[in-house]
Amino acid sequence: MIHSSLRTVEWKDNSVVMIDQTKLPNELIYVTYTDYQDVAVAIRDLIVRGAPAIGVSGAFGLALAALQSTANTKESLLEDLEKARKVLHETRPTAINLAWGLEKIMNVARSANDVSDLKESVVTEAKKMAEEDIAINMRMGKHGSQLFDDNDTIMTHCNAGALATVAYGTALGVIRATKDSGKKIKVIATETRPVMQGSRLTAFELKHDGIDVSLIPDTAVGYSMANKLVSKVIVGADRILRTGHVYNKIGTYQVALIARQHNIPFYVAAPLSTFDLKSRPEDVIIEQRKASEVTGVAGKKTAPDDITVINPAFDMTPPELITGIITEVGVAKPPFETSIKKLFESQL
Amino acid sequence: MIHSSLRTVEWKDNSVVMIDQTKLPNELIYVTYTDYQDVAVAIRDLIVRGAPAIGVSGAFGLALAALQSTANTKESLLEDLEKARKVLHETRPTAINLAWGLEKIMNVARSANDVSDLKESVVTEAKKMAEEDIAINMRMGKHGSQLFDDNDTIMTHCNAGALATVAYGTALGVIRATKDSGKKIKVIATETRPVMQGSRLTAFELKHDGIDVSLIPDTAVGYSMANKLVSKVIVGADRILRTGHVYNKIGTYQVALIARQHNIPFYVAAPLSTFDLKSRPEDVIIEQRKASEVTGVAGKKTAPDDITVINPAFDMTPPELITGIITEVGVAKPPFETSIKKLFESQL
Repeated sequence: MIHSSLRTVEWKDNSVVMIDQTKLPNELIYVTYTDYQDVAVAIRDLIVRGAPAIGVSGAFGLALAALQSTANTKESLLEDLEKARKVLHETRPTAINLAWGLEKIMNVARSANDVSDLKESVVTEAKKMAEEDIAINMRMGKHGSQLFDDNDTIMTHCNAGALATVAYGTALGVIRATKDSGKKIKVIATETRPVMQGSRLTAFELKHDGIDVSLIPDTAVGYSMANKLVSKVIVGADRILRTGHVYNKIGTYQVALIARQHNIPFYVAAPLSTFDLKSRPEDVIIEQRKASEVTGVAGKKTAPDDITVINPAFDMTPPELITGIITEVGVAKPPFETSIKKLFESQL
Repeated sequence: MIHSSLRTVEWKDNSVVMIDQTKLPNELIYVTYTDYQDVAVAIRDLIVRGAPAIGVSGAFGLALAALQSTANTKESLLEDLEKARKVLHETRPTAINLAWGLEKIMNVARSANDVSDLKESVVTEAKKMAEEDIAINMRMGKHGSQLFDDNDTIMTHCNAGALATVAYGTALGVIRATKDSGKKIKVIATETRPVMQGSRLTAFELKHDGIDVSLIPDTAVGYSMANKLVSKVIVGADRILRTGHVYNKIGTYQVALIARQHNIPFYVAAPLSTFDLKSRPEDVIIEQRKASEVTGVAGKKTAPDDITVINPAFDMTPPELITGIITEVGVAKPPFETSIKKLFESQL
């Protein structure tokens, strides 16, 4: 079982232990928090990142807040928790998973019988959420691994790995499961400018786990595919619409476009919680991130002062470029409007 | 006349003066060489880069070698030059202009009468090549500017500018000429990882000359085109075959591929000296550059230790993705095998 020894976030002896991802790939450092305010700072400062990992970190933060509280009635404990929920939520206000994780804990807290039951049940629930995240990724890996063949070289963009989740990963979880199934595979990771999650995180975590990985600059995607170095592509997703439109890290769209031109299958791996069944493509606003991400690297300036920058966080890959969407309940194939609907119906 | 005040490489008082492009955009520093071996190091270490600029730099290097030689017969001086030619050529073996510039100087050397005539004539020839480079770029600009329209936003990759030539630029020369013709234009420059010639050089030189330029990470090419931010593309070339296959900076091919998917015209600007009329695509070997270009930026490590890296210097853009090739004697359009032949025949 290629279960990464990297555990992004974990509950241990009434404290939260995280990998400090800002120190990667140079140092693998674990930080331990017993104060929910420190967890809030960790989320805000990207010590932990990746939608599923942030959701669980928020839940753990709220569990810490419950343990920290000196309230002796359920009502005043709930008040303390509500305060902590707000602090934690404000660190990444647009992150759907964070709000979801916090709300899940608040619901458990509200239905507790008393102070001690509340404290125990929120810790239990938060730990369960972390385990569920891993279980979902492993189910996704099992479904996805059937799409990959012996001797495949798989390209991936950004980091949809152990480091973006609690431990196993979505796209990289599928890669782990494929290797675990006995198939020999190699991975090509794109650097993923501007924030370099590919070189800093994906290359790091795959190498750490002994998976054969090569790093390329984002400019070498076309070269790699034209020279038959790539047999399949897999990426994660930040949001998937019911039509199969996939929003993911900037650069995903062009990787999909280039893959299509070379007849290379392009897969997306994401849990059902990533689907937004309400929005249409024209409803989704793509946030622009700060210019300094593009004008420098690690504090070193690489562009002239005051240059105008276009720095979209995400792009949209249309369904016609996608071969399949891998979820924990199965693989959706085109036409996606029908197949995605079926996946959700199977859960009713 | 938007004639950049940047002079990339120049012969001055029996020495070669260059802008140290590795220091851009933070510092504009000129370096002076009197030893051809230093020029070889400068070419290899990208202190000077860009096909036409290294062609002239190679010629200047060979002129220095002639001045440095203590040979007292033409034959032994030619031997010294042959040695220097080899050293200079091996710095960038894929660059056709370098071989061309060196060969041009060797031819002049071979036809010299004696040692002193040889020394004088190679210096004169090298200086003439520098002036011709500027004149060629300006003629190219005139031809190319007719292909661009008022209010165009032109994407360019890497740096085919003043900093890639002696002074005016090939692709950016066309942009300068277009603006000079009275048309309002904007430029989008791709960062161009791994060496970042787009952000470090193109953004720098266009901003320096007051041309409207925005910078994007290489991952945002697809986004920019899908969102109709780009009306045309222009790039330079390191080598063009008689079939219209274009070898240029890694990433060019995918920019061309993405442009074609969005029906955006894709132009290449290069002087006739860039054409290799003998080779076929299967003959051209693409050099791999060192891993450290990809694993770090400006001395900062951004990837794990000992990671495998694929770092090709160039890629190949096939003729079917190219709308036109702009030269100093006119514009070649598809089918290129015929139109390129005609351009050369017009020179006979």
